[in-house]
Amino acid sequence: MAAESNLTRERPLVPEDSALLIVDVQNLCARRDGGEFKARSDAEIARDYAAYFAQLEEVAVPNMQRLLKAFRAASVEVLYTTIESLTRDGRDRSLDYKISGFNVPKGAWDAKVIDELAPEDDEMVFPKSSSSVFISTNIDYVLRNLGVKQLVICGLRTDHCVESAIRDACDLGYLVTQVTDACASITQERHENSLRTIKGYCRQVTTEALLAELPC
Amino acid sequence: MAAESNLTRERPLVPEDSALLIVDVQNLCARRDGGEFKARSDAEIARDYAAYFAQLEEVAVPNMQRLLKAFRAASVEVLYTTIESLTRDGRDRSLDYKISGFNVPKGAWDAKVIDELAPEDDEMVFPKSSSSVFISTNIDYVLRNLGVKQLVICGLRTDHCVESAIRDACDLGYLVTQVTDACASITQERHENSLRTIKGYCRQVTTEALLAELPC
Amino acid sequence: MAAESNLTRERPLVPEDSALLIVDVQNLCARRDGGEFKARSDAEIARDYAAYFAQLEEVAVPNMQRLLKAFRAASVEVLYTTIESLTRDGRDRSLDYKISGFNVPKGAWDAKVIDELAPEDDEMVFPKSSSSVFISTNIDYVLRNLGVKQLVICGLRTDHCVESAIRDACDLGYLVTQVTDACASITQERHENSLRTIKGYCRQVTTEALLAELPC
Amino acid sequence: MAAESNLTRERPLVPEDSALLIVDVQNLCARRDGGEFKARSDAEIARDYAAYFAQLEEVAVPNMQRLLKAFRAASVEVLYTTIESLTRDGRDRSLDYKISGFNVPKGAWDAKVIDELAPEDDEMVFPKSSSSVFISTNIDYVLRNLGVKQLVICGLRTDHCVESAIRDACDLGYLVTQVTDACASITQERHENSLRTIKGYCRQVTTEALLAELPC
Repeated sequence: MAAESNLTRERPLVPEDSALLIVDVQNLCARRDGGEFKARSDAEIARDYAAYFAQLEEVAVPNMQRLLKAFRAASVEVLYTTIESLTRDGRDRSLDYKISGFNVPKGAWDAKVIDELAPEDDEMVFPKSSSSVFISTNIDYVLRNLGVKQLVICGLRTDHCVESAIRDACDLGYLVTQVTDACASITQERHENSLRTIKGYCRQVTTEALLAELPC
Repeated sequence: MAAESNLTRERPLVPEDSALLIVDVQNLCARRDGGEFKARSDAEIARDYAAYFAQLEEVAVPNMQRLLKAFRAASVEVLYTTIESLTRDGRDRSLDYKISGFNVPKGAWDAKVIDELAPEDDEMVFPKSSSSVFISTNIDYVLRNLGVKQLVICGLRTDHCVESAIRDACDLGYLVTQVTDACASITQERHENSLRTIKGYCRQVTTEALLAELPC
Repeated sequence: MAAESNLTRERPLVPEDSALLIVDVQNLCARRDGGEFKARSDAEIARDYAAYFAQLEEVAVPNMQRLLKAFRAASVEVLYTTIESLTRDGRDRSLDYKISGFNVPKGAWDAKVIDELAPEDDEMVFPKSSSSVFISTNIDYVLRNLGVKQLVICGLRTDHCVESAIRDACDLGYLVTQVTDACASITQERHENSLRTIKGYCRQVTTEALLAELPC
Repeated sequence: MAAESNLTRERPLVPEDSALLIVDVQNLCARRDGGEFKARSDAEIARDYAAYFAQLEEVAVPNMQRLLKAFRAASVEVLYTTIESLTRDGRDRSLDYKISGFNVPKGAWDAKVIDELAPEDDEMVFPKSSSSVFISTNIDYVLRNLGVKQLVICGLRTDHCVESAIRDACDLGYLVTQVTDACASITQERHENSLRTIKGYCRQVTTEALLAELPC
């Protein structure tokens, strides 16, 4: 049984116990021509999503690229989750997604991780139809098999799927590190409220600080 | 297979498909002499927790009393969850609670639901050591056995254990109703931020509105 | 809450509440040139596996073909599970499969359902690395989303992965129908012992009897 | 990631990584005056259950007493599961138990572990209404929190609840040790068939051999 003294969430990464999970950075919602935005005019996007795309394209995606490069170089497992049904007609989706009228058919372009962050050969992608990847996929089983104890989480959106993943991962006993500047939400206020709400469930660090923990 | 048309989160309660879940309204954190506050002076409580206890004692608890009375009268299942270890020394707790140095021993006074909302004979209480009751207990299994499709959630705290329960319940396919004025958090701002963040995961109603849906 | 009277395991199929699950009928173990047998000489196979291949090729596979045809005609969901890693190097596999030295790489020929029973377009296949499909995959989540209450199970092997699936499905609240002559094990004795052991967990019927329950 | 070489099921117990799980040795089914037998005459019991009670009373229970004494002396976690509803009226039970007409009310005498093996202060008992303790309880969550990697399983009945626990524990990544002479079933044939069926899922040892692994 683990001794309780010396337990802490502020534990630097141990590469062989760690994995990086990138949440929902897919064409659907991370590109202006993705399914979530394609019906909107450029004017609407400029008005309603300027802050989102600025944070995503200028900050979060470049940071995730740096994370990917460093984690792969350190042989840390890289995992992805995406919103994607297991069928084309979406009949396997959660009730929640059915109510939302939300279907990303299996194999669709919208389901693909964006090219800038594309999975490499033999990296795993978990298609999901729930906010929390832990509810609708077998990722907890896989993480257990991989021996992962520390889970680094980033992606979209801070206050929805990222936050649900962090809450459940923490409850399940993973030491969670959230990379704050590798996440984004629709507004900066939503992003920051979420960080404050869940700061007791994880360690929150910047990309820069996290990279400094990895062996060079 | 469910037809997708006519699916909605705004479905009024069907009593025989429903259950009421009261989250963490226990001596530990819902009483001034509970474990969370007993080391604090009256002055500290007045300064830091005035808003919390005002919302809790004057609004949320009286509303939960009304809910309990009405749900029991309508023969709707009433369920509770509490922060409580399965052992006295807390060795079974989640890593998260161990890190927090947080142990409510099995059977402790702190673990009991407050007298005002005490469980009645043969109602179920699920002791937990995680934020989300769905991660550390078998409540999903029990809800399935009970045939519950609609889950009404209230209690403490809006942005932590209540929110985690709502997120996971929604992901698991329950139609969730959050009773907004039967929840409380440390500040009104936290409470309201949480309501805004998760409004897509549930139906949000007041106690008054919800009671009107039950048969009188 | 379900009334207890009239509850029975001997309930004929209601097509819209049902699904057919075919377990592990893949090249690996259902073909003489599959990974499990390819190192063995014809003489060894004739000596040790004659009964297995006779039951499989002459009885179980033809019966599964009849089931597939009838279930698809009745628009009943058809699901498959196969032994298959989520990676090529198998690092995601269960400890049990690692101990057994057992890896079916993602996408390998060994992982494919045999041609005679090939999945049709938009049918789901759940790759697994455990005996019970309910432990290592999200099939329970998907069945819930599909509204499945009655699960018809057949495939390989009666006493291992088929039996584990039946036990867990029963425990999870599905009404399970085992199609006894659409299963096979290494020996007839193992097959029959398993049927006797689990007869309290499911309804056991022949292909012929089950087909008679479907609308023609 | 675990190296695959040197992985084995035949690993002797490491006390600090281990737990002992005693399955369903409760008044209901382990005593002649328990709920399962009380409607039967002495003559019927002598005719139909002589082998069962002989194995149980003369072999399995004395062996479990020796295991308990040794495991407690070595400070190994001791866990129990029992067939017991979470309510008195049993409405929380699995569909399977409802179909079987099988209810052990919460707190009933039938639900208690037999006096010879009574839990000590602060040991955990998991009430269940399924064959596998892993499906209807949160035992996997607790084992994870305890840091258990090796699970020793014994109790009743070899081919039903004991076997289901072993299958699921193995699938979940525990190294399972079955204590063969601390289990019992209705007939010796059922007992032995089960041992043969699941020998690939666990290490099978006698009480004597297992005790020799513990520090004296």
